[in-house]
Amino acid sequence: MMNIKSTDSGLCIDNFKAYGLREDKYGVAVIVNDEICDVAAVFTKSSIKGAHIHVDEKKIPGGLQAIIVNSGNANAYVKDDVTDAEAMCDMAAKELGLKSENVGVASTGITGKKLKLHKIQELTLQVSSKLINSSEGSMKAAEAIMTTDSKPKQLCFEYEGIKIGAIGKGSGMVSPNLATMLCFLTTNADLGRKELQHALEKSTEDSFNMLEIDGDLSPNDTVLLLSNKKKPCSIDYFQVLLDHTTKEMAKLMAKDGEGATKFLEVEVIGAKTKNDAKTASKAIVSSSLVKTAFYGENPNWGRIVAALAAVLDIKLEKIDIVFESGDLRAHILKAGEVSNLEKARLILKKKEIKIIIGLNNGKEEAIAWGCDLTEEYVRINACYN
Amino acid sequence: MMNIKSTDSGLCIDNFKAYGLREDKYGVAVIVNDEICDVAAVFTKSSIKGAHIHVDEKKIPGGLQAIIVNSGNANAYVKDDVTDAEAMCDMAAKELGLKSENVGVASTGITGKKLKLHKIQELTLQVSSKLINSSEGSMKAAEAIMTTDSKPKQLCFEYEGIKIGAIGKGSGMVSPNLATMLCFLTTNADLGRKELQHALEKSTEDSFNMLEIDGDLSPNDTVLLLSNKKKPCSIDYFQVLLDHTTKEMAKLMAKDGEGATKFLEVEVIGAKTKNDAKTASKAIVSSSLVKTAFYGENPNWGRIVAALAAVLDIKLEKIDIVFESGDLRAHILKAGEVSNLEKARLILKKKEIKIIIGLNNGKEEAIAWGCDLTEEYVRINACYN
Repeated sequence: MMNIKSTDSGLCIDNFKAYGLREDKYGVAVIVNDEICDVAAVFTKSSIKGAHIHVDEKKIPGGLQAIIVNSGNANAYVKDDVTDAEAMCDMAAKELGLKSENVGVASTGITGKKLKLHKIQELTLQVSSKLINSSEGSMKAAEAIMTTDSKPKQLCFEYEGIKIGAIGKGSGMVSPNLATMLCFLTTNADLGRKELQHALEKSTEDSFNMLEIDGDLSPNDTVLLLSNKKKPCSIDYFQVLLDHTTKEMAKLMAKDGEGATKFLEVEVIGAKTKNDAKTASKAIVSSSLVKTAFYGENPNWGRIVAALAAVLDIKLEKIDIVFESGDLRAHILKAGEVSNLEKARLILKKKEIKIIIGLNNGKEEAIAWGCDLTEEYVRINACYN
Repeated sequence: MMNIKSTDSGLCIDNFKAYGLREDKYGVAVIVNDEICDVAAVFTKSSIKGAHIHVDEKKIPGGLQAIIVNSGNANAYVKDDVTDAEAMCDMAAKELGLKSENVGVASTGITGKKLKLHKIQELTLQVSSKLINSSEGSMKAAEAIMTTDSKPKQLCFEYEGIKIGAIGKGSGMVSPNLATMLCFLTTNADLGRKELQHALEKSTEDSFNMLEIDGDLSPNDTVLLLSNKKKPCSIDYFQVLLDHTTKEMAKLMAKDGEGATKFLEVEVIGAKTKNDAKTASKAIVSSSLVKTAFYGENPNWGRIVAALAAVLDIKLEKIDIVFESGDLRAHILKAGEVSNLEKARLILKKKEIKIIIGLNNGKEEAIAWGCDLTEEYVRINACYN
């Protein structure tokens, strides 16, 4: 096990500065470095992508020195959205004294509505004057990009001088690949652009792509990784550190799923193939009936079996189901035999629950993260505009 | 257009008798004919099937004269479930003076709990003495098989002397192929067993398989069609009549989706392939964000576009979206241009809403049915046991 340390700098590692502010429904965050950084990126698989993705895709090969992000409006499915995204880059570039071609952009919020550029202009002006290399700067940026998130999300991990910092937002429209999520990562790892890109894609597979909030796929999902390349580094150590960071960020997003009262971690072990393990863990964590059962603190393991049997060819007598929370553990289904339901009920009262499914059919495993489905989720999304 | 007549006999057409009773959490329905009927059947695609399916599969080749159905317990994922399902057939056979090999069985309710056979015995005794060839008998049977359904569901259609009657239950755990649904159909059509089976499979594809309540797949989904073969009949007319019946039953189930306040019919037209049209219509009607938006009477067409773009390669400028209800019609998205949102808001206040999506990419089309996602859905499923 690598001895990974957690620090509190958020994405303001080394010479990265950040800040963010909110006003009414809009928020603006800016992230900036002294020099142009190498960039890796992963975007939504939706066939209609938000405007910022088209803009970023062009700029990434030349590197980015700053990113401007707004919340409150996704700048998607509207006329002139690409022009508006470029205008955001121009605004930030002007305030920061950079070339617009080195400024990236991202947006999150409602689709189909025209961006209020004057709002973003005002906020950008204020944010640019407050950029700071500190945990607080990162936290302010994390707060500014929130939509229905209830908490800002930032992380920083370090191993032998290699650092990865991150801010993110998640909450709803999270699935099945990426999420209505934004995540901005900074690192000092001196790796080539191709290596960074490969590492980020690999890391996303087992982190953000294993996150399920509501099964909806957003046009704007974006993960950007900026490296200042200050620290020589082996790709293997970097991958472990990056995987750790993206998984922890995915968990923060699952814990803050819209309306969620419980965090669910579903681990499928003993699968024949990796794909089976992934399919099964995602099917369970995204089943409405499993999610509502956990909300109701109801150990309805039959719904877990049904979700599993809907996607994999299984036999009940081979399935193990274990619930865990902290030190509590209940082996509720063992070779088709049910037991420990009372203990399971105690575990279901906890806020963070791990569900382990043994398929006894091979050696592959996978973990997916999600949350319960609550009346509050319905209220948030019935009224969101 | 064939002039299909609706009648009120439910599944008690010709010489079919039925009845049903409920007590506490259990319900029992019996359907019977004077002679052994030819049977067609479609079952769940789940890899772990409820016990009754194993029992029925053996008996269907020899024909069925009666069916016994219980609600309140799915008789799935428990020990000796097949033995218990067979015991149910024996009970009914004894009361009705039939051979057990000609009695089919079905169960619906919670999984993983032992069936209370003595309850079913008591109810079977009473039901068997009340079997009647009338609309009321059919309705009593429809009531007895309800779980979270709020209304019994029965239908009967006739064309030139060919009759198809049906009772069904749906409500939750409905998707993506069939549903936690049971549907029992009776007909007088004199067709071969293979023809009946082929017609039922074809009909299910465009009816029950296009129904989405919550994306969950049940182990017990069952559609059984019994024919007394009294009426010579062309397969083509029969297929039209059967399709009409199964679609109307699917709509009844969607209207009574768990906690639903609105019925949604999503029609995708102008698709390149039939599969595209089906995938798109099902993706839209099963999106949590689309469903909550309709619950909130919020014309958030961006969520419809997002659901579409998640499964098909589309361009916004080619998409048309129309909302309809009764005589009201709002063309809200036309070649990427938004309009008529005020009229759309009026339509969203209605209980039954049709959403028409034009892809302008071909000639194929499909319709899927579903309902909104409400706080009541969450409450029903958090507490169900």
